[in-house]
Amino acid sequence: MSLLMENQFGELPPDKAIDTKTFLDTVSHIPAFFDCLGSKVFTIIKSDINGNITKIRAVYVTNPAKYTTLEDILVAEREAHGAEWPKVGATLALMWLKRGLRFIQILLQSLADGDRDENNPNLIRVNITKAYEQALKRYHGWIVQKIFNAALLAAPYRSNFLKALSKGEEVKEEDCLANLRQFLVNYTATIDAIYEMYTNLNAELNYTV
Amino acid sequence: MSLLMENQFGELPPDKAIDTKTFLDTVSHIPAFFDCLGSKVFTIIKSDINGNITKIRAVYVTNPAKYTTLEDILVAEREAHGAEWPKVGATLALMWLKRGLRFIQILLQSLADGDRDENNPNLIRVNITKAYEQALKRYHGWIVQKIFNAALLAAPYRSNFLKALSKGEEVKEEDCLANLRQFLVNYTATIDAIYEMYTNLNAELNYTV
Ligand SMILES: CCCCCCCCCCCCC/C=C/[C@@H](O)[C@H](CO[C@@H]1O[C@H](CO)[C@H](O)[C@H](OS(=O)(=O)O)[C@H]1O)NC(=O)CCCCCCCCCCC
Ligand SMILES: CCCCCCCCCCCCC/C=C/[C@@H](O)[C@H](CO[C@@H]1O[C@H](CO)[C@H](O)[C@H](OS(=O)(=O)O)[C@H]1O)NC(=O)CCCCCCCCCCC
Repeated sequence: MSLLMENQFGELPPDKAIDTKTFLDTVSHIPAFFDCLGSKVFTIIKSDINGNITKIRAVYVTNPAKYTTLEDILVAEREAHGAEWPKVGATLALMWLKRGLRFIQILLQSLADGDRDENNPNLIRVNITKAYEQALKRYHGWIVQKIFNAALLAAPYRSNFLKALSKGEEVKEEDCLANLRQFLVNYTATIDAIYEMYTNLNAELNYTV
Repeated sequence: MSLLMENQFGELPPDKAIDTKTFLDTVSHIPAFFDCLGSKVFTIIKSDINGNITKIRAVYVTNPAKYTTLEDILVAEREAHGAEWPKVGATLALMWLKRGLRFIQILLQSLADGDRDENNPNLIRVNITKAYEQALKRYHGWIVQKIFNAALLAAPYRSNFLKALSKGEEVKEEDCLANLRQFLVNYTATIDAIYEMYTNLNAELNYTV
């Protein structure tokens, strides 16, 4: 579980404010997750998520003192952009980034929970589909949904995926899943806090691509 | 036909050497072509092609005098990269870029030639499929081919596509097609010259993604 365990998210403070710099540094290791899926088809998704992170970082570096927390960024952009907001800047980038992060979270949680297709125990399509339905499907038009269904065929076997997450080391499945559960604690709390912030600031949009 | 007519490729010199700077400046208008397809699905492809152009430009600007022509770049990279070459640097970026450019060329040529599905005269799927089969399909594994088939459903109507190419102006179809034919002359010659260069330098690869 090296990929994830070496880059764990920190515990949130009581007010659930997310430190921008720490978040960016930790989340920048997440796109490598898509390499674990093993097919070049997913490189495209990796670029999309990398683009989100780059966009947020670009805003942050213009004034690190002003943008200490992610909420500082959203609030400042709401001031600056008027009616365009929230479909703009780092607010938009984080809106989409959190959906990709949620997709990964639900996928890993589903594996950790032992959800599986009893007829195809070494496939992870049920887990990916569950994550897709909960995190992304509603934001995708029917053509992107069809593209998802085609891309699903490139999903790796469960055993290969777990091995890739462990950076190719031979880790016992039970150890790997225990590591996953450990990783998910702060990761899930962070994503929940971002979703909560979007709800509180009324920054969430429902358009489809 | 503003999008294309305003950014025509120049005539090639007798030795068919392609000036890097002129090429980069002209080709940088091409990704906007994918906006004319009218669906956000194609944004992804636009990024891929933009990435190729950025990569070539990044090499060029390190030493414009040394990289006057595209061939100068390939030859220098062959020296510099040894066995890694040609799957590296601007050589790899241009290898893929030329395929995207060929795709566009065949699509436009097919429209200019009047190829059409008599049962669905306002669809351009036959034209897109022809371009895909000749320019790209062989470099795509079966999953990306399936993704292409899904993306094809997002293709615009012929009339809307021609209008978008004319930047929304109401141009008579015959005028639009005449402009297309005009644009295709130097554009096709340039792409042919790049393909010839890859053959001559033995720089072409056949791996699939
Ligand atoms: C030649 C043949 C090919 C033909 C054409 C093929 C085209 C294929 C296109 C398929 C779509 C790929 C997924 C990407 C979808 C993206 O469109 C969306 C929205 O993307 C957002 O859009 C915003 C504007 O609306 C801003 O630009 C954001 O950018 S901004 O930073 O500038 O603000 C950007 O992230 N992101 C998403 O839906 C996020 C996806 C996240 C992860 C998904 C995991 C799924 C894993 C599946 C496993 C089976
Ligand atoms: C959440 C749901 C979504 C789930 C996941 C969806 C994933 C969808 C992925 C579909 C593939 C999209 C097309 C992109 C394919 C690209 O993979 C290829 C190769 O791309 C090249 O790869 C190289 C390394 O091998 C370098 O990185 C090149 O980069 S480098 O510059 O760094 O060297 C890069 O361009 N380019 C291509 O095949 C080129 C495509 C060109 C244009 C195609 C026009 C088609 C129009 C179709 C109209 C109907």
